[in-house]
Amino acid sequence: MLKGDFTLPGEAGCEELTLKLARKWGADVIRDSDGTKLSPELLNAGYDIYSTICVIRGHNAYAKAHPEDVQETFLMSDPVAADTEPLCIHLLSGYHEEQFSVNDSEESVKLWQVFDRTENREVARNSWVFEAETGNVVVTGALPCHEYTVNFLAFRIWEEINMYNSITNGWKTEHLIPIDPRSETAQAYLLDWMDRWCREHPDTDVVRFTSLFYNFVWIWGSDPKRQNRYTDWASYDFTVSPKALSDFEKKYGYALTAEDFIHEGKRHVTHMPPSQKQRDYMDFTNEFVVNFGKQLVDIVHRYGKRALVFYDDSWVGTEPYGKRFPEFGFDGIIKCVFSGYEVRLCANVKTKIHEIRLHPYLFPTGLGGAPTFMEGGNPRRDALSYWTHIRRALLRQSVDRIGLGGYLHLVENFPDFVDCIETIADDFRRIKTLHEEGPVQTLPIHAAVLTSWGRLRSWSLSGHFHETYMHDLIHVNEALSGLPIQVSFLDFDDVRNDGLDDVDVVINAGRAGTAWSGGDAWRDPKVVSALTAWTLRGGVFVGIGEPSAVEGFEHYFRMAPVLGIDEDTGERVCEGRYAFSVEEEKGLIPAGAFLAAKSGRYLTDGAHTRVLAAETLKIAGYDDPEPALTVHPFGEGKGVYLSSFAFSFANARMLFNVLLLATGHGLDRPFVTDNAGVECAYFPASATAILANNLDTEETASVRIQDRDGREKRITETLAPYETKFVKVLD
Amino acid sequence: MLKGDFTLPGEAGCEELTLKLARKWGADVIRDSDGTKLSPELLNAGYDIYSTICVIRGHNAYAKAHPEDVQETFLMSDPVAADTEPLCIHLLSGYHEEQFSVNDSEESVKLWQVFDRTENREVARNSWVFEAETGNVVVTGALPCHEYTVNFLAFRIWEEINMYNSITNGWKTEHLIPIDPRSETAQAYLLDWMDRWCREHPDTDVVRFTSLFYNFVWIWGSDPKRQNRYTDWASYDFTVSPKALSDFEKKYGYALTAEDFIHEGKRHVTHMPPSQKQRDYMDFTNEFVVNFGKQLVDIVHRYGKRALVFYDDSWVGTEPYGKRFPEFGFDGIIKCVFSGYEVRLCANVKTKIHEIRLHPYLFPTGLGGAPTFMEGGNPRRDALSYWTHIRRALLRQSVDRIGLGGYLHLVENFPDFVDCIETIADDFRRIKTLHEEGPVQTLPIHAAVLTSWGRLRSWSLSGHFHETYMHDLIHVNEALSGLPIQVSFLDFDDVRNDGLDDVDVVINAGRAGTAWSGGDAWRDPKVVSALTAWTLRGGVFVGIGEPSAVEGFEHYFRMAPVLGIDEDTGERVCEGRYAFSVEEEKGLIPAGAFLAAKSGRYLTDGAHTRVLAAETLKIAGYDDPEPALTVHPFGEGKGVYLSSFAFSFANARMLFNVLLLATGHGLDRPFVTDNAGVECAYFPASATAILANNLDTEETASVRIQDRDGREKRITETLAPYETKFVKVLD
Repeated sequence: MLKGDFTLPGEAGCEELTLKLARKWGADVIRDSDGTKLSPELLNAGYDIYSTICVIRGHNAYAKAHPEDVQETFLMSDPVAADTEPLCIHLLSGYHEEQFSVNDSEESVKLWQVFDRTENREVARNSWVFEAETGNVVVTGALPCHEYTVNFLAFRIWEEINMYNSITNGWKTEHLIPIDPRSETAQAYLLDWMDRWCREHPDTDVVRFTSLFYNFVWIWGSDPKRQNRYTDWASYDFTVSPKALSDFEKKYGYALTAEDFIHEGKRHVTHMPPSQKQRDYMDFTNEFVVNFGKQLVDIVHRYGKRALVFYDDSWVGTEPYGKRFPEFGFDGIIKCVFSGYEVRLCANVKTKIHEIRLHPYLFPTGLGGAPTFMEGGNPRRDALSYWTHIRRALLRQSVDRIGLGGYLHLVENFPDFVDCIETIADDFRRIKTLHEEGPVQTLPIHAAVLTSWGRLRSWSLSGHFHETYMHDLIHVNEALSGLPIQVSFLDFDDVRNDGLDDVDVVINAGRAGTAWSGGDAWRDPKVVSALTAWTLRGGVFVGIGEPSAVEGFEHYFRMAPVLGIDEDTGERVCEGRYAFSVEEEKGLIPAGAFLAAKSGRYLTDGAHTRVLAAETLKIAGYDDPEPALTVHPFGEGKGVYLSSFAFSFANARMLFNVLLLATGHGLDRPFVTDNAGVECAYFPASATAILANNLDTEETASVRIQDRDGREKRITETLAPYETKFVKVLD
Repeated sequence: MLKGDFTLPGEAGCEELTLKLARKWGADVIRDSDGTKLSPELLNAGYDIYSTICVIRGHNAYAKAHPEDVQETFLMSDPVAADTEPLCIHLLSGYHEEQFSVNDSEESVKLWQVFDRTENREVARNSWVFEAETGNVVVTGALPCHEYTVNFLAFRIWEEINMYNSITNGWKTEHLIPIDPRSETAQAYLLDWMDRWCREHPDTDVVRFTSLFYNFVWIWGSDPKRQNRYTDWASYDFTVSPKALSDFEKKYGYALTAEDFIHEGKRHVTHMPPSQKQRDYMDFTNEFVVNFGKQLVDIVHRYGKRALVFYDDSWVGTEPYGKRFPEFGFDGIIKCVFSGYEVRLCANVKTKIHEIRLHPYLFPTGLGGAPTFMEGGNPRRDALSYWTHIRRALLRQSVDRIGLGGYLHLVENFPDFVDCIETIADDFRRIKTLHEEGPVQTLPIHAAVLTSWGRLRSWSLSGHFHETYMHDLIHVNEALSGLPIQVSFLDFDDVRNDGLDDVDVVINAGRAGTAWSGGDAWRDPKVVSALTAWTLRGGVFVGIGEPSAVEGFEHYFRMAPVLGIDEDTGERVCEGRYAFSVEEEKGLIPAGAFLAAKSGRYLTDGAHTRVLAAETLKIAGYDDPEPALTVHPFGEGKGVYLSSFAFSFANARMLFNVLLLATGHGLDRPFVTDNAGVECAYFPASATAILANNLDTEETASVRIQDRDGREKRITETLAPYETKFVKVLD
């Protein structure tokens, strides 16, 4: 059996267990974790050593000596309606006072703004004043019944991952303060620290950066009923400071205001289309993170160590899909994964080593607070549930390594979990080896996902699946991650600049106005006509949810002429709709697949739009028949519409079938099983098929294998629950 | 038993039946209907005679001699994507060619416009030309893949009610052409015709105008899968003509364009907030209709006859709630009713006689095409189902008369229907008499419904209940029509101009952006702060659906500070929501009541918003707990939120309970039954309670009656299905 390519979290005090599991799971690397240390016995056991560092925390002495270098963010005070004169607004009301403290320095207060939110009007500077002793802004001349808010800068005095782990795990240690490497003083300090760290850790082979400087945005509230006020995994709100804004103005020639970040209290979430200012600021920050990050990586390399970056936590500004990423000089990337799309996200980064960290994390509870390695937990079930999603993606594209993280001693009471990881690790290595022997069989279908973010947010939206489940696109990406087709990610500039030439399918999925459907980008007639012309020439435009939707034109779905269907937002409520009947397309919708119809969809081309699935909704007791899946011929191409898409193994197969049908490949394909719960990947060079059972039941599946000369063989296999079966099929 | 106040449709050839039913139902008036005539025997049987006339149809000779006086409308050609050069657009493609013919006169074509709808840009006049022989507009220089449409004027060559009756009933008679009284020639012709008509109908006591000049908008399609392209009961699109537009420009100092009506193909439906241009044009048309209508009414009066107006069909411009309505000099109004809100709509018009025409219409099929007086129909069931809704409203406010319409001979095979109408007529007369003896007991609660249309669209939205069921407000209006409270209708000018002073409850209900919730009117901080101040002083603001919703401010629901709840349209998807638990308020939600929660609602005041009902929705397999009914204290007043509202008898009681609770009246009230299926109305002057069973089951209900001195008596009654019981309760 193959061994290696496995990173094991070791734990001082559990040397025997660590080394036993290293052998059982085939580990070649031992790592520490946040909260664990490796003992000399483990450091010298003959394994490569990964050491995790978080650059910006663990420097409390420096932070206390240089309070101006503590990381910051803009906050908006909770709105207060004017009732008394003057109006007092307590800035930190509602915020977690252990996370924030007001930055009332002169250069900070200069950036503050008071707004009448009822009118959306900034209040003149001479009408308000900050009282440091009360923490209040006092506004004079406020209009009765109008609501007022203050945009202000706050220091973030408790690094959010440390805060989370402390609160979840009951840690009583000193709160770690995140420092901002923007100032020259802080940079000098960190470069010196990095150098010293490398010198003091001669046993470390690989430095694992967790990650670089700025955490994703995570704002905690004071009310236990709303402890989490705000979380956006891909937002840059935690990178601001007076110096950053001043440097930005010098470079870009215009100043950003607090309101550019606060945006009426809504901030600019990653799920909405970015403004140009937001893009400028992200680019500005990315440039800084890359330039200073590279200096740290260079130090690591000077000590003969490798540098990997963990793509989570304080990853903001790192941007593995940004144009500057290769400049860091990282030797590889590590991504923690729950889902298939995260595997592809990791695998496609331009770097040498791609490692995925599996879940569950070896911790008593999971992210949502549910028990994992404690009474009531079932870590084997969790591991297999994640693994089925991850394996689907690995069948299409491998990564280089897998691993775990956390407190190893916790697994001792869960022997079935230990066995299960052994199987997973072995299966992973066999899958990886097959990929190395030659490319997996892939259909000549190139599907491009079209969003406002394009390549920069390839595969991911903003965080993990369970954080983004309300967006159709994460379900689509998860389905695509395991399909035998080529997938890429485009933005609207790509559409305008002839980026569709080698694309067979464009997918646009999401709620109107979001970054995923594209929002105002669809106002541009060039985008609409480029995609229309491309469809006329044979392209397949797949719209899901509210594709290409924007107000102010004849069609709410700007691609309605191609799709043959549109949505009424209320203005067309007096229009009669085309009656339709559902046509059955044999084999298209596998057993167990489902589509939730949405209200207000209506056919625009009653003569040609084929309704392949529909649902009758009840609106105030009245029947409302709604198309849920339609296909519309358009020139040489097609428009396909799905009212929504939720991931399930059957639904992933349904999406694949829809793509096969629309691109003219037909549903009766070799290399596709007759059981939507069982995947097939075929490796021609090794003449090996992998059959993978995604379900927790024994399943039988049959599949036609076709060799390069077109000879066919049908294989039928019965698989145990979750089993991966490697079948040598042709000699 | 009382008799009278009943209008019976007579039918020549069925004299015996007519007179028998006149006696049985207590009729005092016999009328003709569209398609029936009265014989001399009926005209001279001692009953008052109503004669129906439709002023603008039945003049085909005139129409053929004066084709320029045929009524018109703007149409938009179906969009065509440019593929060939030049681009040919057939104007009437998709429209019913028996309803429309292109008006290609010079003064008409001058008003046409060609649009590139992909860009929303008007195409220069010199780039297109109309070819009369083909019916095409030919566009040169069209951009590939862009869609083009033509706004053009079409004559309406088949009056829509005649068209409907002909198609439904298989009439083979000549199509009636509607003529437009805009020209002096047409006016002179119609005045002469009216005079002659009166002279030739000496037996007629009452002329029933059906209605005046312009039908509601009803656009038929050529495709049998979409025969009804567009219906808006309150739109003015069928009143346009070159002369009307030219007169408008002279009077208002600016010109309306075709696009002002077409609006990107969406037209301006009554369900959306009206633009100022639309209001100007409506006012302009109303003035014309009143001025010329009054001349016709005057002729009727000169002949010693009365003039009633039927409020349907070609009613547009009549506006019974407009400021000019009394100027017509009508002696009364007739409204056909399915629902309680239509009773109140009729009853509140400032005129002498208020008559409601009950349903079902004596016709083989109902409006939706379902069988009525034919095999498979059950007209008694239909009549009782409508009557329960109508009776609820009559208990609160009576009208003067009831009646039926249609072909009387059809009832012969339905003796249970005949008996049922006898009971309904007798009950109506007893209810009316009690109202005449003294006012019904009403709680001191004044609820005002706030919409863009305000008083002008009191009670109704745009048509009957089954045409408007998708709007929360029609359900609310139907519930309000039977509650023992005062109800009025306000617009946003009323709010700005101190119109809230005597109001206890403001209800704002509907989808965002509609005329019912108010759309852009909520941008005005004066509206928000006036309502906020009014709530602080003790007002109850009830928001349903997407109340006060508009984009671009901190709160999507502008009244969120009052309501304590708001909706996330996608920008707040990264925010944590307040956890909540549902508080039970005893007796608030009757058995059988229901509330459908909507996705995206979140508490803005986790400390004070009380969630009284909630529902857990499934979003892509994840649980999404959503508040469905909340109450939020605000100053001396309250904000109440319902995520949706659908009418049912139990839900109407629930709404009543919510109003009782929020206004501090408490749920344990006299005059309110303990059975949500049974209404109680109490008439102190007669010391009589009416108990009315809305259900098709025997029901028992108990109620406390309180006299003027506060003495109480509890009565308990058992009622047969649908029964109305009159109970003398105190001596």
